[in-house]
Amino acid sequence: MNSLDHLLERGIAEIIVEEEFRDLLAAGRRLRLKQGFDPSAPDIHLGHMVGLRKLHKFQELGHEVILIIGDLTAQIGDPSGKMQARPLLTPEEVEANINTYLSSFFKVVEKEKTIILRQSQWFSSMTTEYLLHLASRFTVAQFLHREDFFLRMKAEDPVYLSELLYPLLQAYDSVAVRADVEVGGIDQKFNCLVGRELQRMLGQPPQQILLFPLLIGTDGSHKMSKSLGNYIGVDEPPQDIYGKVMSIPDQLILSYFELLTDEDLRRMEDELKVQNPMEVKKELAYNITYQLYGEEGACQAQEHFLKVFSRREPPSQMVEYPLQAEVVDAISLLHDTHLVESRMEARRLLKQGAVEVNGQKLTQPTFAPHPGAVIKVGKRGFLKIVEGE
Amino acid sequence: MNSLDHLLERGIAEIIVEEEFRDLLAAGRRLRLKQGFDPSAPDIHLGHMVGLRKLHKFQELGHEVILIIGDLTAQIGDPSGKMQARPLLTPEEVEANINTYLSSFFKVVEKEKTIILRQSQWFSSMTTEYLLHLASRFTVAQFLHREDFFLRMKAEDPVYLSELLYPLLQAYDSVAVRADVEVGGIDQKFNCLVGRELQRMLGQPPQQILLFPLLIGTDGSHKMSKSLGNYIGVDEPPQDIYGKVMSIPDQLILSYFELLTDEDLRRMEDELKVQNPMEVKKELAYNITYQLYGEEGACQAQEHFLKVFSRREPPSQMVEYPLQAEVVDAISLLHDTHLVESRMEARRLLKQGAVEVNGQKLTQPTFAPHPGAVIKVGKRGFLKIVEGE
Repeated sequence: MNSLDHLLERGIAEIIVEEEFRDLLAAGRRLRLKQGFDPSAPDIHLGHMVGLRKLHKFQELGHEVILIIGDLTAQIGDPSGKMQARPLLTPEEVEANINTYLSSFFKVVEKEKTIILRQSQWFSSMTTEYLLHLASRFTVAQFLHREDFFLRMKAEDPVYLSELLYPLLQAYDSVAVRADVEVGGIDQKFNCLVGRELQRMLGQPPQQILLFPLLIGTDGSHKMSKSLGNYIGVDEPPQDIYGKVMSIPDQLILSYFELLTDEDLRRMEDELKVQNPMEVKKELAYNITYQLYGEEGACQAQEHFLKVFSRREPPSQMVEYPLQAEVVDAISLLHDTHLVESRMEARRLLKQGAVEVNGQKLTQPTFAPHPGAVIKVGKRGFLKIVEGE
Repeated sequence: MNSLDHLLERGIAEIIVEEEFRDLLAAGRRLRLKQGFDPSAPDIHLGHMVGLRKLHKFQELGHEVILIIGDLTAQIGDPSGKMQARPLLTPEEVEANINTYLSSFFKVVEKEKTIILRQSQWFSSMTTEYLLHLASRFTVAQFLHREDFFLRMKAEDPVYLSELLYPLLQAYDSVAVRADVEVGGIDQKFNCLVGRELQRMLGQPPQQILLFPLLIGTDGSHKMSKSLGNYIGVDEPPQDIYGKVMSIPDQLILSYFELLTDEDLRRMEDELKVQNPMEVKKELAYNITYQLYGEEGACQAQEHFLKVFSRREPPSQMVEYPLQAEVVDAISLLHDTHLVESRMEARRLLKQGAVEVNGQKLTQPTFAPHPGAVIKVGKRGFLKIVEGE
């Protein structure tokens, strides 16, 4: 398989229109590839990395990558594939998110070869009149045909007028940057098609569309998403990325290799047949952490993981708690040190026997630890008791 | 019945909320009454006059009348009550329509006491971002609930995204002018309610709504409308207004009296019981023409009508056609003098025996008239043959 075939086949859900796209690539012109990102969450995750990695490969072939910051649409919240409307963000929240996004992008694509544009660059000067002209090109029925809108309308869940305009705004981004290609998750298909259509209506050559499968989150069942809590953030510390990759269900291993690495998939399949999946997953976790943090970060993360999870030993660095009284209330301790999110969670973990002191299950809500005692909560939470000040 | 009761009862379909509105009037404050007009047709007609007359009465009571020229929404075309989308108008077409509208308004309301505003005064500076914020206040389902949208969607007729935004834009007009009251035809109820709601959302006191019954057109069955061809234009010559009012079906006489005059309705009902409806209609036609053209115009129009239609005599003023050849082709004659709209219409009228020369039906396509001959086409078209130059 030559490298172009590889590029158009590995980790691709659909290409619209494949033949046209291949012709365009064959013509040898520098293409403008566009992907939009709504800074509607505080950070980006491995799901976003899928598209960015593909764009990086096109960069290596000499094509132009344009990342569009949806500073306007973020305030609507992309409804694609969502089963409910999102609250609007304030401009300040959006701005804070953008800063994180930018630094994350450049962990994957090459900064020098990437054009970053904000939607507001064209929308802030667009008149209401022109927006209405754009809106007059499409019907309500066409847009309500989009599966998620359709399902929400059917379930009588609210779909806001602003959400209905979302695909139109994203489509206009393609017009504004004269995109030759738009890339995105398969849930972006509808929006990308509207872009193609709008470009045609406004006299531009219609963009090609490159769609990826959706990366499944750590829960093993839903698309990776900040709001579902099943995500691995690109900006998380290396040991967290490593650890979270290790927590994915085995059946996701191959798709993670396909979408997030360049490893030979046949080799990985073979390895999975003969090895403990845990070992193969370590290779995956190392690979992904390496891409984001280099060799040192990946090594340290792996070392941390092996120490804490495999050998069940406490890590070398732990949160320390200076002893203030002889008898300690476990619930308050866990809560005050942020090892749990609520007192209720602390109570539940204690009840489940998930709290250990020096390797012994804690069965009482109070205990009298000595300095140097190690408290373990759940699989990953560690705390060291030290001498009070 | 005191004059306020009269104002709130005659020619009113619905008041939202009547009690609040009466309280507001009783409080004695100068109120801001708003009506919007989309300059989407070349001229306004008696249907528009219904609201303008009511506004004039409020002007007489000292209230403020604000007419809003929908120079933006005209480009969408108000879909209210329409069974299909309208073509967008160009800014030039809209501008031409506005000029006609303005002169027509002042035939009914007092120019000095009327504030004329254009939507573009607020929409041209509105950002896409703010428009999206407004759009996020309402759901697609709420708007699709509007009867005409609902029926069109059900029939799978296109409803454009721009049309769906129409009620939102009209609603924002109320916010922009801080309207205390919006007046309009009963088909505007939905839009007016959105205005009320949007004002409340944006912290303004919600407007009261005064809705009129729809004036039925000369066909006796549909709302008067330019596009249905059943309208009587406010700017038509007096004899055309008079003549067209005379052409309405008898069952509309009373509602025209109610909506377009101040005549005592009980008296008109009594008259209709004892007189030929034609005579009562003459009173109506005179009254309406009088309002638009004063006594002289109304008298001349009535005189013209009596001469042409009642006595079937040619009018004193006619288009003249200088004879250029002995034998004249009737089709070309009618077409060239614009008495018909097409050669096909001329042919049809000739075939139906609706073309007369000096009171004799013309049966041949050619004839040899003498100077002074009067050609009559249909009921109202007259032409005089004169000596060639």
